[in-house]
Amino acid sequence: MLKFDLLKTDGLARRGRLTLNHGMVETPVFMPVGTYGTVKGVLPSSLEAMGAQIILGNTFHLWLRPGVDVLQQFGGLHRFEAWNRPILTDSGGFQVWSLGEMRMISEEGVRFASPVNGDKLFLTPEVSMQIQRVLNSDIVMQFDECTPYETKGHLTTEREARLSMELSLRWARRCLDEFNRLENPNALFGIVQGGMFERLREESLDALVALDLPGYAIGGVSVGEPKPLMQQIVAHTPHRLPPHKPRYLMGVGTPEDLVEGVAAGVDMFDCVMPTRNARNGHLFTRFGDLKIRNARHRTDERALDPTCGCHACASFSRAYLHHLDRCGEMLGPMLASIHNLHYYVNLMREVREALDAGTFAAFVHRFREDRTRGV
Amino acid sequence: MLKFDLLKTDGLARRGRLTLNHGMVETPVFMPVGTYGTVKGVLPSSLEAMGAQIILGNTFHLWLRPGVDVLQQFGGLHRFEAWNRPILTDSGGFQVWSLGEMRMISEEGVRFASPVNGDKLFLTPEVSMQIQRVLNSDIVMQFDECTPYETKGHLTTEREARLSMELSLRWARRCLDEFNRLENPNALFGIVQGGMFERLREESLDALVALDLPGYAIGGVSVGEPKPLMQQIVAHTPHRLPPHKPRYLMGVGTPEDLVEGVAAGVDMFDCVMPTRNARNGHLFTRFGDLKIRNARHRTDERALDPTCGCHACASFSRAYLHHLDRCGEMLGPMLASIHNLHYYVNLMREVREALDAGTFAAFVHRFREDRTRGV
Repeated sequence: MLKFDLLKTDGLARRGRLTLNHGMVETPVFMPVGTYGTVKGVLPSSLEAMGAQIILGNTFHLWLRPGVDVLQQFGGLHRFEAWNRPILTDSGGFQVWSLGEMRMISEEGVRFASPVNGDKLFLTPEVSMQIQRVLNSDIVMQFDECTPYETKGHLTTEREARLSMELSLRWARRCLDEFNRLENPNALFGIVQGGMFERLREESLDALVALDLPGYAIGGVSVGEPKPLMQQIVAHTPHRLPPHKPRYLMGVGTPEDLVEGVAAGVDMFDCVMPTRNARNGHLFTRFGDLKIRNARHRTDERALDPTCGCHACASFSRAYLHHLDRCGEMLGPMLASIHNLHYYVNLMREVREALDAGTFAAFVHRFREDRTRGV
Repeated sequence: MLKFDLLKTDGLARRGRLTLNHGMVETPVFMPVGTYGTVKGVLPSSLEAMGAQIILGNTFHLWLRPGVDVLQQFGGLHRFEAWNRPILTDSGGFQVWSLGEMRMISEEGVRFASPVNGDKLFLTPEVSMQIQRVLNSDIVMQFDECTPYETKGHLTTEREARLSMELSLRWARRCLDEFNRLENPNALFGIVQGGMFERLREESLDALVALDLPGYAIGGVSVGEPKPLMQQIVAHTPHRLPPHKPRYLMGVGTPEDLVEGVAAGVDMFDCVMPTRNARNGHLFTRFGDLKIRNARHRTDERALDPTCGCHACASFSRAYLHHLDRCGEMLGPMLASIHNLHYYVNLMREVREALDAGTFAAFVHRFREDRTRGV
């Protein structure tokens, strides 16, 4: 089931509430990524403590490891990974796309060799739906082909983008059929594709809307294109989607991207950036980003961000985090991941509060000023 | 300050209570090792949750990184690493000993090149006391030479062990002088050495007892000797130490070693085994040890140890931990470290309860039976 209540709007920005089988999600929301059934380096209890409402899982990865049999035995991903709130699962489309030359795409689906053990595998819209049924994720993504920004060394042409988009559309219909056949009690989202071509995106959107799915995603952004092109798509597509359904911008992005996305009418975001950057010592704060490896932090007694309420900022100094980084201690990425995820989750909480209070424009202004102030 | 109350004895086993500047420690106690100012992979809040009472730090490592200036600025190790309960610091003797051919030992101290940046360093009893004063650890260990089991390819001779033990004794006196000169408000422990030679250990012990230090350690065990020799030393030395002072067996060992140590009159233990083994997927349980990498855990829905109250056992299955291990996910060693440390800390809690109840012999019998039952 999926229920979406649009509580308030401010220009294109929206304040909403999703009700899913495993609970409610206040939007706009950032969803931490838990590819292999774990948000890297973070305990589920830490995710709860920081206010994460919904996390991601990846169909492709979970299919390979631990495998569908294990997840079936556990009755889905929630119990396996000990996360009892909502889960959204990606369809595997983006991951097989990332395999590059290692895969072969046909009308039927995608053939590839398992990067884990070399097994020949065949992922189709139907298989993706079957796996996601086992995962029992609250939001199921359609299997799609992610249209690349470049194809074989040239910018993807409109014709190539059209073929790809139309394939994704046909796969969307097959996904819906299989989703219904499996009597999946959760919610299936369609994914708007079309590369960098607005009229293709509009065609994709119209055709998906005709399927009357409970929610829609904007896919195929953050796939190597220059930032202005990404911003153009984010400005173009979200507000064209049905207003009474949730909108999810896939794989985006920086804190600035998120705030811009909200302003453009997006309700849901996911990105590996907070966790991946954390593991590289790149930390997000209200007053700009910070590289903890930098020698200037060696003696700095201050918290990463004195306005941050995360576990890392409550107890530890920049000097300590710098020390952990230099020593290669596991606690370094652990605390950095907690901090970065908390920053993203809390940023969306502040966005929701501003929308509730009718002060979103002022919030955006202040956000930008703060972020450029410097740490 | 250090106050030791001997609450109860049962044969040679002792139930006691240490009062230190940062709080009380119920003994017998296991002390998790936090070499570089962090118990590897474990948040301080997790250590508190599992009931850890006192943790270790390493003078040698902390001297190199972050350096004395940083620790001085933070007023010691407690605030730097956000651990407000007692801390014991090793003197650096064992670590310079571990450098092997990289160091040169003289009467004055140990010259070596920093393994971090090659800097020429000189660690002496006085320098060790000065660093530990800055660390402000509740228990300061004397700087000693750890007598090896083998010396240049042959078993260490009694003459070699005597020279080493006598050097450690002279260093103990220099440590005490410097400790007093620095007006260190904490407690200095002496370390009994003497290699595998009981009469040398007795000489060492007598000379250290004459210094009237507030506590004593048994050093130079678990340095490559066969298990029966280690057991012989553990049976020999502890009960000869002054009964009204705490006794610390350094760097030991397996759960069985700990229980045997308690039975021989030891009050305090430390070992990297629970954390190091955790990172290699070797898990300790009441019913024996378990290698989580083993394929037989792939579909096992049971907790590691159904009688364990740790965070890993409360929420996660063996199948999930196996999955994390196979995927190389950071959460694997995180949960394994929590579990193994909890096992050690809880084992000592059960030992204390048995001593309190006067049922230690029955406890030991049950412990051995359980541990050989198999998981």
